Amino acid sequence: MIAFAALLAAQSGQAAAAPAPPPAASDPVAGDWREIPGDELLVMTLADGRTVVIRLAARFAPEHVANIRALARAGWWDGESVYRVQENWVAQWGDPTEKKPLPPGIVPSPVPEFEIAAFEPAQRLARPDAYSAASGITADGWPIATDGRAAWLTHCYGSVGVARDALPNTGSGAELFTPIGQSARRLDRNYTVVGRIVEGMQHLSSLRRSDAAMGMYATAGERTPIVSVALASDLPDTDRPRFEVRTADNPRFAAYLAQRANPEAPTVAVGVNVCDLPPQVRRRP
Amino acid sequence: MIAFAALLAAQSGQAAAAPAPPPAASDPVAGDWREIPGDELLVMTLADGRTVVIRLAARFAPEHVANIRALARAGWWDGESVYRVQENWVAQWGDPTEKKPLPPGIVPSPVPEFEIAAFEPAQRLARPDAYSAASGITADGWPIATDGRAAWLTHCYGSVGVARDALPNTGSGAELFTPIGQSARRLDRNYTVVGRIVEGMQHLSSLRRSDAAMGMYATAGERTPIVSVALASDLPDTDRPRFEVRTADNPRFAAYLAQRANPEAPTVAVGVNVCDLPPQVRRRP
Repeated sequence: MIAFAALLAAQSGQAAAAPAPPPAASDPVAGDWREIPGDELLVMTLADGRTVVIRLAARFAPEHVANIRALARAGWWDGESVYRVQENWVAQWGDPTEKKPLPPGIVPSPVPEFEIAAFEPAQRLARPDAYSAASGITADGWPIATDGRAAWLTHCYGSVGVARDALPNTGSGAELFTPIGQSARRLDRNYTVVGRIVEGMQHLSSLRRSDAAMGMYATAGERTPIVSVALASDLPDTDRPRFEVRTADNPRFAAYLAQRANPEAPTVAVGVNVCDLPPQVRRRP
Repeated sequence: MIAFAALLAAQSGQAAAAPAPPPAASDPVAGDWREIPGDELLVMTLADGRTVVIRLAARFAPEHVANIRALARAGWWDGESVYRVQENWVAQWGDPTEKKPLPPGIVPSPVPEFEIAAFEPAQRLARPDAYSAASGITADGWPIATDGRAAWLTHCYGSVGVARDALPNTGSGAELFTPIGQSARRLDRNYTVVGRIVEGMQHLSSLRRSDAAMGMYATAGERTPIVSVALASDLPDTDRPRFEVRTADNPRFAAYLAQRANPEAPTVAVGVNVCDLPPQVRRRP
């Protein structure tokens, strides 16, 4: 990744001039891509038109995702802000005062959805990690882990979690956060994971850090305004982004994982952490 | 960390009014802090006076650190830039043209220092991780790992590595990088780790990401100028920052690790990854 030779070759067009290599065992085929439903995509538009697209874990955190859909449809986040950016920890958005009334139909304190029904990865990683006996990727692309009994979605870079007060059942989904540095696995099973950022993460990760307590911006002027948050399915056809996820229940994905865990020489390091795998998501071609 | 109750208590001064709690078993005592030699601290001043302080791993990568000291003393980086910022990967600095002559006394291609002599942590973490059979923290605060045979410094968030060309022995230390997202453990044993950022990481992690190939800024104007890079020991007394590292070979550090790995209820997640431990470094009081 840091080799200049490869970069120069790419820039000089050598790769384009060479005959196309045969597909690798780890290359997805067309049928491996599945469209993500429009009501499982949250489009957050920041000041200056930058957009962040979040895939919602509707299957794993249905109560919180129901709240999030209702909040989006009510335009609840429009005019709010990214108000907390803490170095090597999280960016957080919503209403910094926590006083804005929630729209009708919201369950203010849903039961926490810290854990999921079962550990059923399509691909199980070969090694344990520091936080779980096993981890893997579900057929529909979610990183999950288990201690042998319970299972849960992991707090990776770009995962979206529900901020809350000290009591576990105090997060409605109105205040959301994403880890912007080293993964935040120590939040696993203690915060509800509701999604993952699949486009535009750089607009949150590059925000100015705050030196104030917990990375809350000390003044309103430091916050990044949110213009709107809407479900993709509620946007006009012309504005609606369409995304596909690469399914993991196939031998191509298994080969991709094997390649990540055992790179070609001269790389010596072996292994892959479930959080090191970026979301396998693309705009629909 | 995300509890608003704790934040509000801190802001309202309730904590200050309460009697001081007794020291915890994980609190360091004065003797646990050891001054870092001034020639093991690299002070990089960016445009607008922001500074980044890097602790050099002189004991583990002596050949590359010798080069880096000579480069700093020659003022080689002064006027150069942070020229690559790739989302969820690295920020990299030095001379983007790779054509600036190196000063006399530099070994242009030192032998790679990918591995270290032995795995001798003062504190060994309880669990393996995805990339190593064991990991831990040395008595002088460095994160290290082993596969049971070789040992190495790990590529954590904020570690500083030597960028290079495709061949392993092509990095002089003039081009340096730091992981700015999820840890970059897959670079372990394949790139020489020469240090870790101990102050000012936020000035690199919050830089605008480049969409160009490998995160190289497409134009010179996007780069962040480097005003100067100097060893702390070469700065005038009045400007010289002095830092201390918390030593790990004592029961207070063991208690700190145990607390990180097994937080108090209601936290359920257990475990700690060697890269999740921030550098235990402070300005000398």
